[in-house]
Amino acid sequence: MLGKIQPSLRDLGLSSRPPGNKLPGYYHGALRDKGWIRGIEGDFNASALNNRVFTLATALQSRIISTLNMNKAPIHVAVTGAAGAIGYSILFRIASGEVFGPDQPIILHLVDIEPALPVLQGVILELEDVASPVLKGLVATADMNEGFRNISWALLIGSVPRKPGMERKDLLAINGKIFTGQGQAIAKNAAKDVRILVVGNPCNTNCLIGMNNSDLPHDRWFAMTRLDENRAVAQLAKKSGADATAISNLAIWGNHSPTMYPDFYNAKIGGKPVTEVITDENWLKTEFVTTVAQRGTAVMNARKASSAASAANAAIDTVKSIITPTKAGDWHSVCVESDGSYGIEKGLICSFPMRSDGKKLEIVQGLKIHPFSQEKINGTVAELQGEKAIATELGMLSK
Amino acid sequence: MLGKIQPSLRDLGLSSRPPGNKLPGYYHGALRDKGWIRGIEGDFNASALNNRVFTLATALQSRIISTLNMNKAPIHVAVTGAAGAIGYSILFRIASGEVFGPDQPIILHLVDIEPALPVLQGVILELEDVASPVLKGLVATADMNEGFRNISWALLIGSVPRKPGMERKDLLAINGKIFTGQGQAIAKNAAKDVRILVVGNPCNTNCLIGMNNSDLPHDRWFAMTRLDENRAVAQLAKKSGADATAISNLAIWGNHSPTMYPDFYNAKIGGKPVTEVITDENWLKTEFVTTVAQRGTAVMNARKASSAASAANAAIDTVKSIITPTKAGDWHSVCVESDGSYGIEKGLICSFPMRSDGKKLEIVQGLKIHPFSQEKINGTVAELQGEKAIATELGMLSK
Repeated sequence: MLGKIQPSLRDLGLSSRPPGNKLPGYYHGALRDKGWIRGIEGDFNASALNNRVFTLATALQSRIISTLNMNKAPIHVAVTGAAGAIGYSILFRIASGEVFGPDQPIILHLVDIEPALPVLQGVILELEDVASPVLKGLVATADMNEGFRNISWALLIGSVPRKPGMERKDLLAINGKIFTGQGQAIAKNAAKDVRILVVGNPCNTNCLIGMNNSDLPHDRWFAMTRLDENRAVAQLAKKSGADATAISNLAIWGNHSPTMYPDFYNAKIGGKPVTEVITDENWLKTEFVTTVAQRGTAVMNARKASSAASAANAAIDTVKSIITPTKAGDWHSVCVESDGSYGIEKGLICSFPMRSDGKKLEIVQGLKIHPFSQEKINGTVAELQGEKAIATELGMLSK
Repeated sequence: MLGKIQPSLRDLGLSSRPPGNKLPGYYHGALRDKGWIRGIEGDFNASALNNRVFTLATALQSRIISTLNMNKAPIHVAVTGAAGAIGYSILFRIASGEVFGPDQPIILHLVDIEPALPVLQGVILELEDVASPVLKGLVATADMNEGFRNISWALLIGSVPRKPGMERKDLLAINGKIFTGQGQAIAKNAAKDVRILVVGNPCNTNCLIGMNNSDLPHDRWFAMTRLDENRAVAQLAKKSGADATAISNLAIWGNHSPTMYPDFYNAKIGGKPVTEVITDENWLKTEFVTTVAQRGTAVMNARKASSAASAANAAIDTVKSIITPTKAGDWHSVCVESDGSYGIEKGLICSFPMRSDGKKLEIVQGLKIHPFSQEKINGTVAELQGEKAIATELGMLSK
């Protein structure tokens, strides 16, 4: 399936071959004639540079990228809960090349429980029908060893949701069992560079259990609070009338649960502290925090279905945030193992302000924590400690 | 909502300001120092050019595009059936900037029938929670005038599906009424440059009815056979063992229905005629054509739900194919008003091999039609004529 496509003049939209087969020079000249690389070498100001490089980037994207030699080795990406609603929302975006880039061949592993396999066969048909340039293979399985074989990324979306009358302990017992098995199977089968993002709830403690039942370095394990961050950004944009792109430095602290805390004291709107732009501090401390915390319920009440597409979108944002360098001075929310930063108990999977250099993530240090924030962080961390205590009691953190 | 973000050195990942505030030169030098534009001006061969421009393109994408001045005026894009499954699959991809580009601000109009509005409110919440840089506004409405006001694109996805026992005439009567009203409302309210892609089935005749009940130039109306094309590409790739990217020149002719014809005689695999690569011509004439025709049913049987995500993906491919120049020598399938080409009755909305220069589409002329193809094309065109006759009889093409 791994065809190698040589770019040709025709592919580049150039109609005739140059004399004497002087391809490189001809390409260069032709690209310049078409205006694709004009401007880069000339005089320009910052704004014109932006416009020109953008024109260049889009022209290159649409005309050249599809004809590139896909020399990169394909990466295997596993998605659990692949037959579910978040799976259906994320798989086609991964298959389109949006997440790992238009030059990165992908082999998708669709993992779900046995009864979901017939539905998964339908998803496979549809994924084939995308006829994507990057999608080089598909695996659908309920077998964890096959599901996680050679994978470089695991998006652990599948979990058992809380049902009415279910105690938190019951929920952790059921999911803990799933993530114990998955942690072991990933450690046994995955590629050496594997990274794992846990989306299935309770994601922090599921991640904690998975991590402690695998032999992998702990810095490969992530859980998701990006949906909370995006929800918080949307609310701040709405309240201030600013564009979503103007909101920066917004970290979610703690657990992905209604106790999570969106740290508006350190966030910015158009480079200014949020509290300078939105002067109604009471709104920030109450309605803002509550709206973000209860957003999932609001979506559920309106759609009569959970927030699948925005969760899928946040998972995509999380992966991109991990593999792409963070804008200087900014940060994003990812749950990682605490190293004790900000006095948060070592070993908990906790959401922090995180920064990436494109390869490694680090917790942003030295932020001033407002007393109101500290109280909220203490509350959400206490919840994480409580979940950890239950998991320990259940014998799931024995390792 | 239309904030304007000035790029800063920090945004570009450059840590200090240059002396004397000589930004442009500093940018240029710094970009060169970082290796982002190195290579464009030097010596290179074609392959190195590809690698370098790709590196450039992705570096620019991840580091600069998000900080660009979004100087373009926002375009309004309407999606009907927005509360449905295809709507849910396409809206978030449009909102991500994937379809119209990362520098094109968008205002999304979510249109559906009155009873769907509560669900649509949930979709609106989730779209807000994408916190997308390009999504500048959201409208949710059951009012056609509001729904189509100022739009530059209408993706008409909503339609009434055929139910058991329903005659084709009943189906056309119900949908014809919807598309009559939509055609009129689009002509009355849309932006001057509006283009309409009909996805809701029976899409060809729905498009015909909409087109004939609007005052818009007929070349603004399109219906979708790209899903059939993608399905055909997937089957040829599977059978030949070639990569999906190696399949080109695959046109669907006729009606988006099981009578559609995937013209394998003119298609290519790795630049060679399909019939040279897949020598089992009987397979091509029978199983291949049938598999493509019945693929929707196969997905439905497996998923117990219709092919929403692959249909959404094909709609995205169609829009991109219309607004992006087609690779030289290649073509894609779009249903447009027949001008009599290939002897197909003028005025029918029929799928043809189409080519775009990025602005206008044209029917690819001069293809040799194999007698087997001609017979198949005659069959599917006869079906279109039959649907047109019913629509005429129902008084829906009076204009």
